[in-house]
Amino acid sequence: MASHTSSKPEEYNLIYWPGIPGRGEHVRLALEEAGAKYTDTAQTEGGIDQVLAYVNGNVPDDGINPPPLAPPILKHGSLVISQTPNILLYLGPRLGLVPDASKDPDGLYRVNALALTALDGLSNEPHDCHHPIATGLYYEDQKPESKRKAEDYVKSRLPKFLGYFERVLSSKAAGDGPWLYGGSFTYADLVLFQCLDGVKFMFRKAMAKAEREGKYARVFGLYEAVKERPRIKAYLESSRRQKYSMGIYRYYEELDIEP
Amino acid sequence: MASHTSSKPEEYNLIYWPGIPGRGEHVRLALEEAGAKYTDTAQTEGGIDQVLAYVNGNVPDDGINPPPLAPPILKHGSLVISQTPNILLYLGPRLGLVPDASKDPDGLYRVNALALTALDGLSNEPHDCHHPIATGLYYEDQKPESKRKAEDYVKSRLPKFLGYFERVLSSKAAGDGPWLYGGSFTYADLVLFQCLDGVKFMFRKAMAKAEREGKYARVFGLYEAVKERPRIKAYLESSRRQKYSMGIYRYYEELDIEP
Repeated sequence: MASHTSSKPEEYNLIYWPGIPGRGEHVRLALEEAGAKYTDTAQTEGGIDQVLAYVNGNVPDDGINPPPLAPPILKHGSLVISQTPNILLYLGPRLGLVPDASKDPDGLYRVNALALTALDGLSNEPHDCHHPIATGLYYEDQKPESKRKAEDYVKSRLPKFLGYFERVLSSKAAGDGPWLYGGSFTYADLVLFQCLDGVKFMFRKAMAKAEREGKYARVFGLYEAVKERPRIKAYLESSRRQKYSMGIYRYYEELDIEP
Repeated sequence: MASHTSSKPEEYNLIYWPGIPGRGEHVRLALEEAGAKYTDTAQTEGGIDQVLAYVNGNVPDDGINPPPLAPPILKHGSLVISQTPNILLYLGPRLGLVPDASKDPDGLYRVNALALTALDGLSNEPHDCHHPIATGLYYEDQKPESKRKAEDYVKSRLPKFLGYFERVLSSKAAGDGPWLYGGSFTYADLVLFQCLDGVKFMFRKAMAKAEREGKYARVFGLYEAVKERPRIKAYLESSRRQKYSMGIYRYYEELDIEP
């Protein structure tokens, strides 16, 4: 299989649902931060058809890639891979968003663990707060269960994860400066930023209180520091940054629990 | 940091809750399959204290590793990492459970995506079937919600994931033989095996029917083929293999829905 993977084009192709930032946003932020050349089905006419072809299993067997189950999907030359943390792991060394492997060969695994933990607690769990019973049902069909789960999330889970990342940022392994690991910027910082941004949108009361309290000063400091990175700032102000709507992070007043 | 990671001992140390196979089981199976030397807090006197020290954040800052949030945790020399798929990613090349990087440099990402997808749909989702509202509450405090979620799981989610892995096993990328990718055995096969084993325990009616129907013959074929690998077989028959109890996979008759 080496012949298929040995030379790669400059351009990356992101296949993700149009109309929501969603999990694809983590991939977009990495590509934008690096100034990488990429296409995005959220921005291209007929992009949705490509997404649906994958989701419905209507893409011909290419002979080298296992079929992906769901977007985000990254194509890079003949390689097709799925799963957000996996795509980031692939992009990390290519985009300069992981520690230098010659100096810190295990840094990648530390960064990957941080990204996985942020996605677990600050992306998957918030999603499940409006879909605790079934992703195939409407929110309206699981409202009482959602309320119960959101209450628990705001009272126990959110402080647990904010406290955890504050602890990571206070550890010696974080190094100097605002970043999670090794004193340098990695994709784990981007993942945490995007997760915090979504949770701020969905649970605005709880996050405003958490910020006021000052207990998570490093976490909110990282959030602001990512936002001010020149390419991220330009991206967030561009039309490529989609608004939250009916994706992972949704605003339902009844779920915006007072902590 | 290179000096901390350049030489590694032969022995691995797994830190995981005693008394349940849990997520730690994926790490154990990889170590057992490879015949690796390892210690396991589930098998050592006072092992639970080590787990609790990490869970409660009572482990001194070692200066090089971000603190882990939760077990499974792998120690290898001075390296400490968490998150099941991340630990497997680290162990994969060391234990010979990923494609040869010199021949298939991208194989690792394909294997990682398969492992992540199995964990999502056949480990995290089954867990949430008995804890749909809050992991901090007892099952008894969320029984009606659990029933509703388990019904949806058995009727829509389980067939979706079994069908997906049958499709992966039928794709050209799977190659010849019973394995998921590239015609050779990888840790993704072990992950899928363990997930299927747990789901068979928890949803025995649905899994018995799925097996009878014959629609997922390759999936159940992989399950049997893993079980017959000599070191896995010996491990499964040993006292090191713990019984399912109050972990991810639990047997509640009322959740064992007839599909």
